[in-house]
Amino acid sequence: MLGYMNAEAYEQTVKTGDVTFFSRSRQKLWTKGETSGHKLRVREVQVDCDQDALLIQAELTGPGCCHMGYKSCFFRKVTAAGEEVIMEREFDPAAVYGVGE
Amino acid sequence: MLGYMNAEAYEQTVKTGDVTFFSRSRQKLWTKGETSGHKLRVREVQVDCDQDALLIQAELTGPGCCHMGYKSCFFRKVTAAGEEVIMEREFDPAAVYGVGE
Repeated sequence: MLGYMNAEAYEQTVKTGDVTFFSRSRQKLWTKGETSGHKLRVREVQVDCDQDALLIQAELTGPGCCHMGYKSCFFRKVTAAGEEVIMEREFDPAAVYGVGE
Repeated sequence: MLGYMNAEAYEQTVKTGDVTFFSRSRQKLWTKGETSGHKLRVREVQVDCDQDALLIQAELTGPGCCHMGYKSCFFRKVTAAGEEVIMEREFDPAAVYGVGE
């Protein structure tokens, strides 16, 4: 998954070991898994050459990372014919997040 | 590597098969490898759940992707003690990009 971190989100991620983002739309911190329980436990943090992006290797404490029920948010490939789902659904989003999410 | 694409960059990527970004600082398209020759040839494009990020699986036509001479831009891990380089340098940036880059 791809998410935005500010300094506070990064500090909380390091302190707790649970990947935490900053929601720019809601203007608040959110820890991945705070609703679903599917947390991302940090294994290693890598930083890129110009130091504006992090690649976090993490252990997922649940069946899927994506709020749509898949292991990864990148569960579709794009082809000339359109989009194609390339993963199996791991859980039912309505059961985990409630109907309407 | 992580880079920004606008619609035109994406269209050029699909048309040519060479990963192309849009530089927001220089306000122009740039094809990865246009200086170094180390291009990224698209194998597969995956799109995320909310459709604002792409994960591109690509073949690198050179020794390293990063302008600092490493296979990946994420060549350092972050530890409590600071940053630690976790990859070998694959090429000399000065020889590829010229001195001063």
